[in-house]
Amino acid sequence: MSKTLKKIGVMTSGGDSPGMNAAIRAVVRTCAYHEIECYGIYRGYEGVMEGDFVKMDARSVKGIINKGGTVLKSARSKAFRTKEGRQLAYEKLTEAGIDGLVVIGGDGSFTGAMVFNSEFDFPVMGIPGTIDNDIVGTTHTLGYDTALNTVVEAIDKIRDTASSHNRLFFVEVMGRDVGHIALNVGVGAGAEEILIPEEDLGLDRLIDSLKRSKASGKSSSIVVVAEGDKIGKNVFELKDYVEENMTEYEVRVSVLGHMQRGGSPSCFDRVLASRMGVKAVESLLEGKSNYMVGLKDDIIQITPFDQAVKGKSKINKELLRVSDIMTV
Amino acid sequence: MSKTLKKIGVMTSGGDSPGMNAAIRAVVRTCAYHEIECYGIYRGYEGVMEGDFVKMDARSVKGIINKGGTVLKSARSKAFRTKEGRQLAYEKLTEAGIDGLVVIGGDGSFTGAMVFNSEFDFPVMGIPGTIDNDIVGTTHTLGYDTALNTVVEAIDKIRDTASSHNRLFFVEVMGRDVGHIALNVGVGAGAEEILIPEEDLGLDRLIDSLKRSKASGKSSSIVVVAEGDKIGKNVFELKDYVEENMTEYEVRVSVLGHMQRGGSPSCFDRVLASRMGVKAVESLLEGKSNYMVGLKDDIIQITPFDQAVKGKSKINKELLRVSDIMTV
Amino acid sequence: MSKTLKKIGVMTSGGDSPGMNAAIRAVVRTCAYHEIECYGIYRGYEGVMEGDFVKMDARSVKGIINKGGTVLKSARSKAFRTKEGRQLAYEKLTEAGIDGLVVIGGDGSFTGAMVFNSEFDFPVMGIPGTIDNDIVGTTHTLGYDTALNTVVEAIDKIRDTASSHNRLFFVEVMGRDVGHIALNVGVGAGAEEILIPEEDLGLDRLIDSLKRSKASGKSSSIVVVAEGDKIGKNVFELKDYVEENMTEYEVRVSVLGHMQRGGSPSCFDRVLASRMGVKAVESLLEGKSNYMVGLKDDIIQITPFDQAVKGKSKINKELLRVSDIMTV
Amino acid sequence: MSKTLKKIGVMTSGGDSPGMNAAIRAVVRTCAYHEIECYGIYRGYEGVMEGDFVKMDARSVKGIINKGGTVLKSARSKAFRTKEGRQLAYEKLTEAGIDGLVVIGGDGSFTGAMVFNSEFDFPVMGIPGTIDNDIVGTTHTLGYDTALNTVVEAIDKIRDTASSHNRLFFVEVMGRDVGHIALNVGVGAGAEEILIPEEDLGLDRLIDSLKRSKASGKSSSIVVVAEGDKIGKNVFELKDYVEENMTEYEVRVSVLGHMQRGGSPSCFDRVLASRMGVKAVESLLEGKSNYMVGLKDDIIQITPFDQAVKGKSKINKELLRVSDIMTV
Repeated sequence: MSKTLKKIGVMTSGGDSPGMNAAIRAVVRTCAYHEIECYGIYRGYEGVMEGDFVKMDARSVKGIINKGGTVLKSARSKAFRTKEGRQLAYEKLTEAGIDGLVVIGGDGSFTGAMVFNSEFDFPVMGIPGTIDNDIVGTTHTLGYDTALNTVVEAIDKIRDTASSHNRLFFVEVMGRDVGHIALNVGVGAGAEEILIPEEDLGLDRLIDSLKRSKASGKSSSIVVVAEGDKIGKNVFELKDYVEENMTEYEVRVSVLGHMQRGGSPSCFDRVLASRMGVKAVESLLEGKSNYMVGLKDDIIQITPFDQAVKGKSKINKELLRVSDIMTV
Repeated sequence: MSKTLKKIGVMTSGGDSPGMNAAIRAVVRTCAYHEIECYGIYRGYEGVMEGDFVKMDARSVKGIINKGGTVLKSARSKAFRTKEGRQLAYEKLTEAGIDGLVVIGGDGSFTGAMVFNSEFDFPVMGIPGTIDNDIVGTTHTLGYDTALNTVVEAIDKIRDTASSHNRLFFVEVMGRDVGHIALNVGVGAGAEEILIPEEDLGLDRLIDSLKRSKASGKSSSIVVVAEGDKIGKNVFELKDYVEENMTEYEVRVSVLGHMQRGGSPSCFDRVLASRMGVKAVESLLEGKSNYMVGLKDDIIQITPFDQAVKGKSKINKELLRVSDIMTV
Repeated sequence: MSKTLKKIGVMTSGGDSPGMNAAIRAVVRTCAYHEIECYGIYRGYEGVMEGDFVKMDARSVKGIINKGGTVLKSARSKAFRTKEGRQLAYEKLTEAGIDGLVVIGGDGSFTGAMVFNSEFDFPVMGIPGTIDNDIVGTTHTLGYDTALNTVVEAIDKIRDTASSHNRLFFVEVMGRDVGHIALNVGVGAGAEEILIPEEDLGLDRLIDSLKRSKASGKSSSIVVVAEGDKIGKNVFELKDYVEENMTEYEVRVSVLGHMQRGGSPSCFDRVLASRMGVKAVESLLEGKSNYMVGLKDDIIQITPFDQAVKGKSKINKELLRVSDIMTV
Repeated sequence: MSKTLKKIGVMTSGGDSPGMNAAIRAVVRTCAYHEIECYGIYRGYEGVMEGDFVKMDARSVKGIINKGGTVLKSARSKAFRTKEGRQLAYEKLTEAGIDGLVVIGGDGSFTGAMVFNSEFDFPVMGIPGTIDNDIVGTTHTLGYDTALNTVVEAIDKIRDTASSHNRLFFVEVMGRDVGHIALNVGVGAGAEEILIPEEDLGLDRLIDSLKRSKASGKSSSIVVVAEGDKIGKNVFELKDYVEENMTEYEVRVSVLGHMQRGGSPSCFDRVLASRMGVKAVESLLEGKSNYMVGLKDDIIQITPFDQAVKGKSKINKELLRVSDIMTV
């Protein structure tokens, strides 16, 4: 390690996700291990521009590895998208002597970091923190595994009541423009259909499939709908359409909502956060910049920001086939 | 025990709730213990009228004490509200030799049982199964305690993300016309305000309270809204109103929905179900009829159906005051 | 409220239990509500004697209602059992201007408070915090309900593997000298036998019962053993005895241990903690002293310390019978 | 698919693990999808030799994807290790017309399958089901991810009480001869030390490390001990040794035990089970035999049995370093 850096700042930015606290802890402790100072920055880029920093040592992050949310709070910043905002950010960081930055967030946050780096040659590393798993360069984003478990447990509960009443449930899950969450929880919860933005099943085939499922002896059905799905304008309209076109079921809708973003992180997410935090700091210390750390083939590797923010990570199409087979 | 009864039928009726399976198990095993035959009836009164019965013994209910939903399925029946429906039900029961009935359900189901009893002098006992806790004659209905835990855990997760982003969340919870769930989870999750049908806070005072809360240094707020609350037409309109009248927070809505009805019952609900099941069967065997079993002062006691279905159980107003103090 | 008190101290003492943090929060906020100063005292009576106090306001207890353990830490103190220790404690409290004390703990802690009160006429109130539920004057101690759920969930998991392998499990649960936890989780988890200190089943009858259970077609069995049970010298010796005297099962032992004391409190415990905290502070403000707050007939009531520490609360014998019937 | 096979048998063998039911479901439904008959075999090889088979169709496996344990039950078989036992097994399978076998279990079960295949040229495929993750040829065995979460949640609870009392806890976790579980939960739960069979820390260095940790201001410590660790003869002796050699902490032991094998599978394990079940059946249909399905680089791939049963999968040594850094 060259250790030319003296003070590293860490922040969480964009939507929060379980494991962000574990990643903050890992960044702070890796700094302590390498005897580098570490500053926490509140509310993402907003806090950078306001100079809202707090010095953190190994003990500051005690007892947070298992907490949802982020102790540094998060925000989306419009001001940082302006040249003036970034100039101000640079001044605040320089003033505080911070000479390297770890950004825990999603692709929007990384784009900001990349622009900032290009303008001020400021060392930045990213840790992908989002439940949506929509980022290229890592098989798993921080919080994704936890969200899968949260959603599957919620659908298990809905299944209890669905099968007690022979009902059809449309369950809308998060995931922005990608179907990772929907596809995995659909398989994991044994959903009869999974509607994701990457595949257009079509309303007719949905109705056909549900009728076939009912005819085959199933008394209840769960259809998982990704929030980004385009089949119906939204999940309530979908319900109306189905009710008009088939009478076999009572139909209900459940929009799982923001509880999907919270909760104590899974063991996987805690371990991932720890590994990523170590790698992010040590990469900065090795003089690297402008990369995102990620998991590829179960190994922590780094990907240049410009690749990470280009496009969305692809779903595993094998799972669509697995789902089809499972709903035979 | 007189044991003049020879075959007891058991069913679940109306909305399902966690603990119903534990109650079915208790009814079946208490019959086995007293060497009475027991029949499970599918889909509530619908199944009675269809003669959809299954003989159950102690082993039939193996492994269900911890399962949500109801293995006997549940339904709401229009036909049973007619004289013809009830006549048919009587015939089917008589045909099968069933001479006593345990109905696990809510006040609607008990009203049905009461009418049926008055018409045919058929022995009936009720076990209150609903998450809403809205029934007179018991401090706790089956499933209520489990639902409180399910909701509090969901709000804990929402709190994670709310406090990461300085947001105000309106969380709509179940409870039909009463505020029991909202009031308890509001206190249990540390909500800033609790909106229940029993109390009209008024929109102005809500806004005042939220502004005061924000001014006192709170960075996020949770407002728990009972589904039966009348303050705004619904929770989304409430959100719009608040957004128009205060700018301190980003506002979000979460409608927890049907997951509140499912899940593995809490220890309390399993024990309660077991005690109620024993009492229901043994009351029938003692020649009693037309009562609901319930918990009063921690003792299992019985209440005549006509009292149980009259009105709704009252909320504990002490909790409103506790909530006020806690949000100082 | 007379409000002659100006500064109230709050501490947790003895074994910790879920809900202690919620109770601390309630005490602190009730003080804030009544505009009384509040001081947290670290490590129970140890901290009193060391003057280890921290001023707390409404914001100090933010975000702890759902956390297990106790932010004030807890301890058992030998020094406070001496006259010198209590003299020192009195001096430290007086020095800091603290003129009333809320002790969250078990009967040992209450005995200490009672002696301290009698010697120095110092106003004290107790909140029963222990998972064991062994205290007279309250149907529920803080943490008991949470522990029941923790244990039942653990036994559900053990049941999964027990029934996959036709095994007999002895599961030792906490509860000190009383059988409350064992009895309730035994019923709640569907245990075949429940061994508690209040009832001596006898080894012969245990063997008989297990043989009968096996003969009746059960493929696996769970026996819940209270840690205070006296049937065998300990649970491992019990295993040996059973293995020597019946060959029908493979036998395994699981001692659940300290995980029973932790975890996020149930909704019930959070609400109970809030109610008790309000009552404890307001009782002090009304000039009362030397009482424990408790739940009786679902109402928060107070009981003189000398009654609360006399003996152990009785188990509900009805549950023994319910368990017998359920294992028919 | 050649579909020369007509009847596939599926069984669970050895220690059970969460996800086995999901794998059974996947095997059964993949057979149904390809219009092959499927038979469930009870109690592993014991059931093969007894001809204890049950025909299963898509509906037979309804509602089991989220259940711990195995509906087919499991066993370890001595008789199958004899030539006579295997001869009998072959006859029973042939008699029933079963011409292919999917074995869900660990390396011992695969060795049995391999020998059986070599003797009778009987088509066999394996699915690795064990929480220990000790099998070569897959990065994840079925149940491992679930067990990690179960253990981490238990240690979180122990941490609550440990930090309330300034205690040192030795927590023994499962894993047989390998340290996968210990290492991951150690990092995930923020343990101060992790003792695994793959690394001999030595008692002196353990004491040093704990003293250093205490000196650095930590008030409590968790040491995770793999059951296969050799540092002390067992975890209780370890406790004694530490108590004799340092007085800074009260020391406690918790042996988590069999609850680690149970519980509802995580989303990851349910998806993995579904993918593995599809692959196992389709591999048989393609004429393959004597392979284990596994996850490598996030893709389902097959590994010859003889490679899978050779040695134990290696721990990720990077995690030892991450753990060191995190406990700075």
